[in-house]
Amino acid sequence: MLVLNNEEIASMISMQDCLRVLKDAYQALREETALNTPRVDSIINLNEQEGTVYSFKTMGGVIQQGVQALRINSDVVHWPDVTGQRRRVKVPAANGRWVGLVYLFDPSTGMPLAIMPDGVIQHYRVGAANGLAAQYLAPVGAKTAALLGSGWQAQTQLLALDAVLGLQEVRVFSPNPNNCEFFCHIMQQKTKARLISVSSAWDAVKDAEVVCSATNSMSPVLLLEWIRPGVHFSTIKAQEVGADFFPLVHPFLHTVRQAKAEVISAGDVPNFEKEQGWWRRPEVRSYPDLTDLISGKVVGRQTASETTLFVNNVGMGLQFAAVGGLILEKARELKLGRELPDDWFTENVHP
Amino acid sequence: MLVLNNEEIASMISMQDCLRVLKDAYQALREETALNTPRVDSIINLNEQEGTVYSFKTMGGVIQQGVQALRINSDVVHWPDVTGQRRRVKVPAANGRWVGLVYLFDPSTGMPLAIMPDGVIQHYRVGAANGLAAQYLAPVGAKTAALLGSGWQAQTQLLALDAVLGLQEVRVFSPNPNNCEFFCHIMQQKTKARLISVSSAWDAVKDAEVVCSATNSMSPVLLLEWIRPGVHFSTIKAQEVGADFFPLVHPFLHTVRQAKAEVISAGDVPNFEKEQGWWRRPEVRSYPDLTDLISGKVVGRQTASETTLFVNNVGMGLQFAAVGGLILEKARELKLGRELPDDWFTENVHP
Repeated sequence: MLVLNNEEIASMISMQDCLRVLKDAYQALREETALNTPRVDSIINLNEQEGTVYSFKTMGGVIQQGVQALRINSDVVHWPDVTGQRRRVKVPAANGRWVGLVYLFDPSTGMPLAIMPDGVIQHYRVGAANGLAAQYLAPVGAKTAALLGSGWQAQTQLLALDAVLGLQEVRVFSPNPNNCEFFCHIMQQKTKARLISVSSAWDAVKDAEVVCSATNSMSPVLLLEWIRPGVHFSTIKAQEVGADFFPLVHPFLHTVRQAKAEVISAGDVPNFEKEQGWWRRPEVRSYPDLTDLISGKVVGRQTASETTLFVNNVGMGLQFAAVGGLILEKARELKLGRELPDDWFTENVHP
Repeated sequence: MLVLNNEEIASMISMQDCLRVLKDAYQALREETALNTPRVDSIINLNEQEGTVYSFKTMGGVIQQGVQALRINSDVVHWPDVTGQRRRVKVPAANGRWVGLVYLFDPSTGMPLAIMPDGVIQHYRVGAANGLAAQYLAPVGAKTAALLGSGWQAQTQLLALDAVLGLQEVRVFSPNPNNCEFFCHIMQQKTKARLISVSSAWDAVKDAEVVCSATNSMSPVLLLEWIRPGVHFSTIKAQEVGADFFPLVHPFLHTVRQAKAEVISAGDVPNFEKEQGWWRRPEVRSYPDLTDLISGKVVGRQTASETTLFVNNVGMGLQFAAVGGLILEKARELKLGRELPDDWFTENVHP
């Protein structure tokens, strides 16, 4: 049983690899040689901490010829207002750190294989999903992109779009100009595209062929007036786009199977944490999703003038099986990580 | 982060403690200071192993003033015929061992607290649930019981019934007489009740005030002709009793909230593993459950002549929060287990 850390994972992971293994995983899902386990969020209020809840989230997935993954998030969450928009913020309450873990198991024996933190993988798998969607949905030859947000998620969104499109210019906007400048400075070393920090969302969006939102906003970030023929819009969460956007664009979701992620709660939990947004409505299941695109069940962009939208409405645990399996393979090759005795995590008592 | 093993857990656990912490947990569930996370089973066929599947199961629960637990089972499963009855058997495919784990987290910080095998806790929590039900449902002064089955689950069923009723005689039947004899020999050291191995189910059942089934049968074990006024029937799984039993008795379930445990599957998985038995029908939600009994929402046995039935239809992850939290507390007092660095299981990357 191997224990890995984020530094080791970061040293082994690449966006190209993630795009490849995720594509294979979605194909396997279609062929029923892989399985995605629904996400379940359970939320309970913390009596002593007003306006703060404990949120425990699990998602899983298995690839027949690969690994079973379970990703766990054990989060203390609150919702501050940042520049007028409510954000969902995970408090690093575990001695100043966060708790997100990926557990891997061998489906042919049941054996636990590895435990690793989810942070690096999380950003790559979200980026890679939106990148794969852009392969099918971005206008042919798109070279300019707008990036809204300058956090961790924005980094891998940029890497993924760049990997599939070979971008020339990306205009980045964030409500916090310092973050935005810093982001462009850091990320300029990782892309040939020219990164430009701009002072309004409109400045980022107005000439972009691909508009990518990568925020933790709880309310829509994409504005209706931005809709133009030929543009591809991309979001990393459902809340970043309103239901009014859908009739005006050709929409695709990350997954419709898992659109009904279950949320259960106890005690005094804010309603917006449990709310039934558009992404939990039954009609969401009629949209095509990334598995449909990759397996060829539906075609992506069909004309230069159509406006497309990809919403990474909810993640799939299966992504952690794909990327986690890749990381484990590399770690074994490179002999990275700390080995713990298998007997600590198995038993001779029938469970 | 503490790693415990079954020997350590067995040295610390007692049925009386389990009955107490479970009772508190069900009460907390009613008061919404605890939360149970639905069980999800995902099942995929193993191409190379005909008639064998990989089954990955999660269930969780949190107690506001206690711990969040997640219990995982990573099982290779097949279904042999044993003396004419199909059984669900977990193959010890992980180097001859099974894989069932309980992970504990601190809800006030998110911090991982412990990893421990589930085997010992599993048997105690099932036993304690049926024991608590017997407190409310067994006839007053019941001293004789029938026990069908002589495996691990039968051991804790016996301990729990004995703890709440103070039994004088228990007749034990198993299709395998050697197992049955051995069971009585071993367990006689742990109870003042006289244990008698009998050669037919009827011999066990005919004079019993409490009839307890503790098998891994996939088809009904309790027979309609056994129904007599005043008897309390108890099963550890839904499949042990048929739908035809219900109109003839006063039925109670372990939990109606979780009766709809989700089962997803891919590939060639036997239908009986996915089947919608009576325990997944909507009307199941109209039965009272153990939380109703413990919180006083419903009363249990009301007359000496009524026939009651308790079906442990599906477990609750919350039970692992209750018993796991107790074990962790004791392990800390006794300084048992192996400590791993917290930093291995937390991260400074926002997940």
